[in-house]
Amino acid sequence: MVDKRRPTRRTGRRPGSPDTREAILAAARQAFAERGFDNATVRQIATAAEVDPALVHHYFGTKEQLFLATVQVPINPQELLPAVLAGGKDNVGENLVRTFIRVWDSPAGTAGAALIRSAMGSEWTARMLREFLTTQILRRVIRQLDMEPSEAPLRAALIASQMAGLAMMRYIIKLEPLASAPAETIIATIAPTIQRYATGPL
Amino acid sequence: MVDKRRPTRRTGRRPGSPDTREAILAAARQAFAERGFDNATVRQIATAAEVDPALVHHYFGTKEQLFLATVQVPINPQELLPAVLAGGKDNVGENLVRTFIRVWDSPAGTAGAALIRSAMGSEWTARMLREFLTTQILRRVIRQLDMEPSEAPLRAALIASQMAGLAMMRYIIKLEPLASAPAETIIATIAPTIQRYATGPL
Repeated sequence: MVDKRRPTRRTGRRPGSPDTREAILAAARQAFAERGFDNATVRQIATAAEVDPALVHHYFGTKEQLFLATVQVPINPQELLPAVLAGGKDNVGENLVRTFIRVWDSPAGTAGAALIRSAMGSEWTARMLREFLTTQILRRVIRQLDMEPSEAPLRAALIASQMAGLAMMRYIIKLEPLASAPAETIIATIAPTIQRYATGPL
Repeated sequence: MVDKRRPTRRTGRRPGSPDTREAILAAARQAFAERGFDNATVRQIATAAEVDPALVHHYFGTKEQLFLATVQVPINPQELLPAVLAGGKDNVGENLVRTFIRVWDSPAGTAGAALIRSAMGSEWTARMLREFLTTQILRRVIRQLDMEPSEAPLRAALIASQMAGLAMMRYIIKLEPLASAPAETIIATIAPTIQRYATGPL
């Protein structure tokens, strides 16, 4: 998370070098944490990293993809959300918990645990995780489930609270019997909670 | 978390000195983390700290009180649980969430956040927090609510997952609108979840 511009001559950094990638990532982390995902621009990030915006796109793709690279989330929400949302509104509880367990029980879970640990210890990472949840996951879920706009943010935050607590107790604190319960037990018990938060009366 | 016996002569540590307290706490932390709350004994802890067991009781009271001192939990569950359980089984959801919010919205919440942060970063603290949850809170709740023994541990762990996730999102990650929602909103939305985990069909 170095935020200083390097004192090296600009010509000293070759466009293809790992230095350039790192400089872009460092500038992006700072921009996203300070301004939030929506207000940060690729152009500002490129300027701070002293590279051409085209190079940012070349290395990292879209602003979303650059953001995911800075947060070091081990998953791509755009790939997972279809599985969560495919069954429609009435099955979102079960499908969300099922997908969540599948990802967390895989090697990606280790990286997820590292991210949560880091977010708990650092205001900076907490802000990044909050931006990630809000802009990359919750906003998409709200849009695709066509939730009532006045209730949607609270519903989304409630869902996040139960899923985060599940991750914490099952994978980090390792509280039994949740830590070693089979996926089906967790789905059967927690899916109704998520379903109520998503579509039930509040 | 020093675990070495000090090489100083035993007569060099006066019974009333802060050193003695610290030595007892260090020995207790190690004993509880290694053997768990149930298997650790005051006698073993006194031996490791090179003091008389009576001195441990003098400083810290019961084994429970010594454990609470090592975990640095800013609350005493024995004082709070009556408020949670007073309304009986059918009101435990609302009373638990109400008590939880009251404590976390108070200065004790800052210490609680520090404990959770620490538990996320350290295997050692995670183990202590797990012992605390299991032996000081969940076991009491299970006993007092007279839960079916085969289901009780899962019910207790599910409750812990939702409450931990609420603490994380409201007080640490500060996800809106949960972070600034009035207590009544949180009680209205989360109490039914806790009630189902405690007494509903699973």
